[in-house]
Amino acid sequence: MCFSDQLAAYHGLIEQGLDKHLPASTTRPARMHEAMRYAIEGGGKRLRPMLLLATAELFGADGDSALPAAVAIECVHTYSLVHDDLPCMDNDDLRRGRATTHKAFDEATALLTGDALLTHAFALLATAYAAQPALAHSLIQELAATAGSQHLIGGQMEDLLAEKNSNATTDDLEFIHLNKTAAMIETSLVLGGLVGGADETHCATLRTVGRHLGLTFQIIDDILDATADTETLGKTAGKDAAIDKTTYVKLHGIDKAQQIAAQNTQSAIDSLQSLSGDTTFLVALTNAMTKRAN
Amino acid sequence: MCFSDQLAAYHGLIEQGLDKHLPASTTRPARMHEAMRYAIEGGGKRLRPMLLLATAELFGADGDSALPAAVAIECVHTYSLVHDDLPCMDNDDLRRGRATTHKAFDEATALLTGDALLTHAFALLATAYAAQPALAHSLIQELAATAGSQHLIGGQMEDLLAEKNSNATTDDLEFIHLNKTAAMIETSLVLGGLVGGADETHCATLRTVGRHLGLTFQIIDDILDATADTETLGKTAGKDAAIDKTTYVKLHGIDKAQQIAAQNTQSAIDSLQSLSGDTTFLVALTNAMTKRAN
Repeated sequence: MCFSDQLAAYHGLIEQGLDKHLPASTTRPARMHEAMRYAIEGGGKRLRPMLLLATAELFGADGDSALPAAVAIECVHTYSLVHDDLPCMDNDDLRRGRATTHKAFDEATALLTGDALLTHAFALLATAYAAQPALAHSLIQELAATAGSQHLIGGQMEDLLAEKNSNATTDDLEFIHLNKTAAMIETSLVLGGLVGGADETHCATLRTVGRHLGLTFQIIDDILDATADTETLGKTAGKDAAIDKTTYVKLHGIDKAQQIAAQNTQSAIDSLQSLSGDTTFLVALTNAMTKRAN
Repeated sequence: MCFSDQLAAYHGLIEQGLDKHLPASTTRPARMHEAMRYAIEGGGKRLRPMLLLATAELFGADGDSALPAAVAIECVHTYSLVHDDLPCMDNDDLRRGRATTHKAFDEATALLTGDALLTHAFALLATAYAAQPALAHSLIQELAATAGSQHLIGGQMEDLLAEKNSNATTDDLEFIHLNKTAAMIETSLVLGGLVGGADETHCATLRTVGRHLGLTFQIIDDILDATADTETLGKTAGKDAAIDKTTYVKLHGIDKAQQIAAQNTQSAIDSLQSLSGDTTFLVALTNAMTKRAN
């Protein structure tokens, strides 16, 4: 199967999984469950669940067994976007070309919807893998650590602090990107590995791949914010420069930022290829991510 | 040991547990970890962790083994208060006699602090009970279900909707109280039972106890909002009547509300006493809860 067909096949599987593993929109309270689905149905690249499914497959798991974990990571990612878009955070009206959840519903509903998506991720892992409690436990331990105050949320906190501090350093930027962005991409690969029965050594390699991939992804995001328009992005463009935010582009300029992204891409591919099995799709996905900004 | 000494002993153990099992306030990002501790150190009755510890002990567990679970449930309870107090929800400046987290810090920090406390609950359960993955899994499954969109968060959502709907019914009120308040009290008892090795039949009895106890607790809260002053409550009094909120007091009047609370207290005690073991402390705690409003 060629790359674009594989991409479409994973995409289809993920959309089905999201529909299957989220509470029905008629479940009481309906407004809450409608908002959860609205937030998650916005589309997007589904990068994290795709990495998870492809990694699980690389380690011999089938798509069905990895699907609940893929849904769980997309729930955590979506919750972080819903809360990030709130007026007290980034105050964004547009996400993936549609009204953000608090604009489509209201702030209180969006706040609770984020809370509900985060909680649902853990409930889903606990329920879907109940027949394998040790696996359920490993998946939850990995996801809870990454989503917590020292990684995802900690990265968001430092990102907010850096916005108010025009002296933010390369070190601050690295903390933010490693924790706000790369950690969840690392964990996507690790969760896939765990479902496929990867051992500790393999999980360590998957973390290295994820870290480089995550940094590439964030650098490209910074470049796109500076170079693409709102319509292309599906979200407000030029926000970083408008608030003089410390980004790879501000610190290094576009050319150098692109070079750093390319170096991280190569490191991710080198680590991927040290794993046995068919890494063709994951390598192609990594290359495709870098090319977004070209 | 008399009731007040036991109460103080549990209280001391819980405060130690919270201090031990939350990330240090110096951990990066410090502002986030300071806010997590600020929110949780506000005090309060520590009812949920106390019920958890006492139930675990009733089933033969020692306090130390149940303490991480007790901390986890207090983290979830505190997160729900931090988010509930935000301007887009109840917009409260005062909680337990101190500035709410968003007043002491800022809205974005409070939002992320709530997210972090919720996530920490699952991370802590996964880590502290890692040597018993099946137990960790059961605890997480129970807590995630109760904290989710169909119970705790769902109850909060319907509570918000009911505030805007002066025709809210007894059925709406019951949904809100069973899910917003009683579910977490039920789960406190069930988590304690699980740590102590309670079987399914015992867990079902614990749920019945918790449901009655939770309803009593909520009715008394409604009565206190109508009868006590802000200083005594440590939070803004008279809020329900000010917004014509549907409560037990509005629907039934104070005398009848007190009768319903007393009936629920008796049902809780009857179910408790059907369990073997020394239920003296739990019965006394149940009675003490009812007497708050006298």
